[in-house]
Amino acid sequence: VQFLASVLPPGTDPAFFEHLRALDCSEVTVRALPEGSLAFPGVPLLQVSGPLLVVQLLETPLLCLVSYASLVATNAARLRLIAGPEKRLLEMGLRRAQGPDGGLTASTYSYLGGFDSSSNVLAGQLRGVPVAGTLAHSFVTSFSGSEVPPDPMLAPAAGEGPGVDLAAKAQVWLEHVCAHLGLGVQEPHPGERAAFVAYALAFPRAFQGLLDSYSMRRSGLPNFLAVALALGELGYRAVGVRLDSGDLLQQAQEIRKVFRAAAAQFQVPWLESVPIAVSNNIDEEALARLAQEGSEVNVIGIGTSAVTCPQQPSLGCVYKLVAVGGQPRMKLTEDPEKQTLPGSKAAFRLLGSDGSLLMDVLQLAEEPAPQAGQELRVWPPGAQEPCTVRPAQVEPLLRLCFQQGQLCEPLPSLAESRALVQLSLSQLSPEHRRLQSPAQYQVVLSERLQALVNSLRAGASP
Amino acid sequence: VQFLASVLPPGTDPAFFEHLRALDCSEVTVRALPEGSLAFPGVPLLQVSGPLLVVQLLETPLLCLVSYASLVATNAARLRLIAGPEKRLLEMGLRRAQGPDGGLTASTYSYLGGFDSSSNVLAGQLRGVPVAGTLAHSFVTSFSGSEVPPDPMLAPAAGEGPGVDLAAKAQVWLEHVCAHLGLGVQEPHPGERAAFVAYALAFPRAFQGLLDSYSMRRSGLPNFLAVALALGELGYRAVGVRLDSGDLLQQAQEIRKVFRAAAAQFQVPWLESVPIAVSNNIDEEALARLAQEGSEVNVIGIGTSAVTCPQQPSLGCVYKLVAVGGQPRMKLTEDPEKQTLPGSKAAFRLLGSDGSLLMDVLQLAEEPAPQAGQELRVWPPGAQEPCTVRPAQVEPLLRLCFQQGQLCEPLPSLAESRALVQLSLSQLSPEHRRLQSPAQYQVVLSERLQALVNSLRAGASP
Repeated sequence: VQFLASVLPPGTDPAFFEHLRALDCSEVTVRALPEGSLAFPGVPLLQVSGPLLVVQLLETPLLCLVSYASLVATNAARLRLIAGPEKRLLEMGLRRAQGPDGGLTASTYSYLGGFDSSSNVLAGQLRGVPVAGTLAHSFVTSFSGSEVPPDPMLAPAAGEGPGVDLAAKAQVWLEHVCAHLGLGVQEPHPGERAAFVAYALAFPRAFQGLLDSYSMRRSGLPNFLAVALALGELGYRAVGVRLDSGDLLQQAQEIRKVFRAAAAQFQVPWLESVPIAVSNNIDEEALARLAQEGSEVNVIGIGTSAVTCPQQPSLGCVYKLVAVGGQPRMKLTEDPEKQTLPGSKAAFRLLGSDGSLLMDVLQLAEEPAPQAGQELRVWPPGAQEPCTVRPAQVEPLLRLCFQQGQLCEPLPSLAESRALVQLSLSQLSPEHRRLQSPAQYQVVLSERLQALVNSLRAGASP
Repeated sequence: VQFLASVLPPGTDPAFFEHLRALDCSEVTVRALPEGSLAFPGVPLLQVSGPLLVVQLLETPLLCLVSYASLVATNAARLRLIAGPEKRLLEMGLRRAQGPDGGLTASTYSYLGGFDSSSNVLAGQLRGVPVAGTLAHSFVTSFSGSEVPPDPMLAPAAGEGPGVDLAAKAQVWLEHVCAHLGLGVQEPHPGERAAFVAYALAFPRAFQGLLDSYSMRRSGLPNFLAVALALGELGYRAVGVRLDSGDLLQQAQEIRKVFRAAAAQFQVPWLESVPIAVSNNIDEEALARLAQEGSEVNVIGIGTSAVTCPQQPSLGCVYKLVAVGGQPRMKLTEDPEKQTLPGSKAAFRLLGSDGSLLMDVLQLAEEPAPQAGQELRVWPPGAQEPCTVRPAQVEPLLRLCFQQGQLCEPLPSLAESRALVQLSLSQLSPEHRRLQSPAQYQVVLSERLQALVNSLRAGASP
């Protein structure tokens, strides 16, 4: 307030600043779609009512908090639809976010939209998002191979028997692996192998290899196999490999083939199914390729595309005045798209007898709710005539969630909202769900709402 | 650390967590390009040295803080180049940012890159960005016209003489204006006029009109003129109008024509030059049109395009290990673009005798700096042979800015960094500065750095 007083024109009434200091949200009421709901254009995400000045001040904060979160969740849900249910999707976009705050929102809502985990540790701590990650190229390239591990001895997984020198054991395995792969034993980079050994000594039950710091075929893969087989002898199983460059699908196929051959050759069946993770600027198109039938990729790390939503980097949510003192208001502007629907409204989702979504209907708040099994006359957008629909089920969409300065019910957990996303998507018909040229889901108006729009448009006084 | 311990594999050495707790940046040294510098691909923005584990932990935070800020500043500089020096550029993208934090960065770095002001009040308070704004549609549409202002009396600007009823005065002017424009006096929306009167009563020295809540031509413009002329009679001058829909350029031309005609008709010369502000999803293409010769637009508000940089929503900064214990490191990967330049480096900008930028040169930190007037042999990227250059001036690019836990020199003010952007851009040749198919500015390697790259590439031990 003090800052505002310093930038507003001199002579601004001091009582205004006193008024600002006294404001709070105790008279604000918020109705909202539950977190994780499917929202279609025209249906309010939030309905805010309260003293005019207070709810006007809430415009930018609410848009700022809702728009990006909804964009990221929608984008994540698209990526999940493309990936299919089996692939593990890892969000790793913090470095491309608009600061730590943007990164936290991106991680939270990517998970809500259908990702499995995030590399953002703070999102794990603050929001309960499962955290996951691999190792960094800088970790691998920081080793030259001349390092001596502080303690190269590793005890067997079962905890019994003497420890063995893992570095020495990996060196022995390297010879077998190179012979099997037809490589010279000098070809794999010794620094990369030293990095893998160090990682395996620290995390013997979570060993993974990053294969492309030097050459995947001639260095990363044989070094990984040498260390994984050495660990395997002690009863530990490697948990994965990662690729971060080149043709990811093609290399994954190649790596899986090598895993299968080596599993047979060295009689370690578990090696066949070591998960292959990939990353490197993966967008929707690249993801579709990685998710295709027969792909050997198991885990897909997505950073930039998850966080910046490059196909549509912003969601154009708006916050519009629809009623003052119970009187409906409508913005009649030069752009038909910028016109608003007047009045305080209720929203319902109509479902068919098979549970599929038929359409959403907007009506005035004071109208009775549509009844299951009863015929309803509604106006599709731009229609010249109403049409009729007989829903088998009717679901109210907006819930009272904030009143008199208090939450009205406990917020759902992130996992509950995440489950709601997938459940809701499953109710959507394939034509509406497909990502290329989807059929438009209808949001229709009740007859009374349509009549109000018509009367305000006709220029009757608002 | 406690949370990390809860998610890392059981059996992780407890000493590791103790080690993490004891970490700080007291042994970290940072060199950087000064804020607001021109940075070309390949030249380090930051050089970070210190204990390996600490500088590895800094990777994501530094990328997160640097990438988006640099992206926004670059984007803003592009928008300023398109707009030319005269148009006022207002950043208003908070609602499209990745949360309040992202919005603060967007406002700060839009200003640094060449915008004049921001609608983000917090950026004004915390970062000293000049704040500006107009009025909201919801403010205008909240009035029906039946409201009674708490006090409609306004004293003259000079402070002498009796106050007058501004609402009544505006009503009188409305008749003159409508007659002049050939409109019926009932056509302009009474609620819009009441909103303008209320705004003018609150801010008589900063009155502006938002013209498109109903119809610009039949309502917004005549209502604005009525209130502005009423205020003008009392010695106050309106400060602007804003348009937020429709063909902005065309409407601005029309409005200016009306302002000129009304200025002549009513003998109020100041009305001719009332600034016209526009907004509404303005991107680079729309901006170019609004900035063309003869445009009557004065102020351009840009939100989404400033904040989300839709042409390229992320800047692919990377943080790479280049040396360990004085030994150079290089990532040799399947993607040539992902290869790194090894070793600790220095960077210099070579200028011609006319002060224009010739090229940037990267060399090993231990090499002597290039000397003005002396011939230098350098390797352009991908060249088969070196070329020679004789710079008239040589500027070191990286400055020591953080050492032993302390800043080494005071940070420049935002205004200083903003001035550096414009100064640096003015030194760039038009071929390099143009936004469509610019000539590529060369970043070359010294002979010794090129030799090191060659030797590491040849597979000599790293």
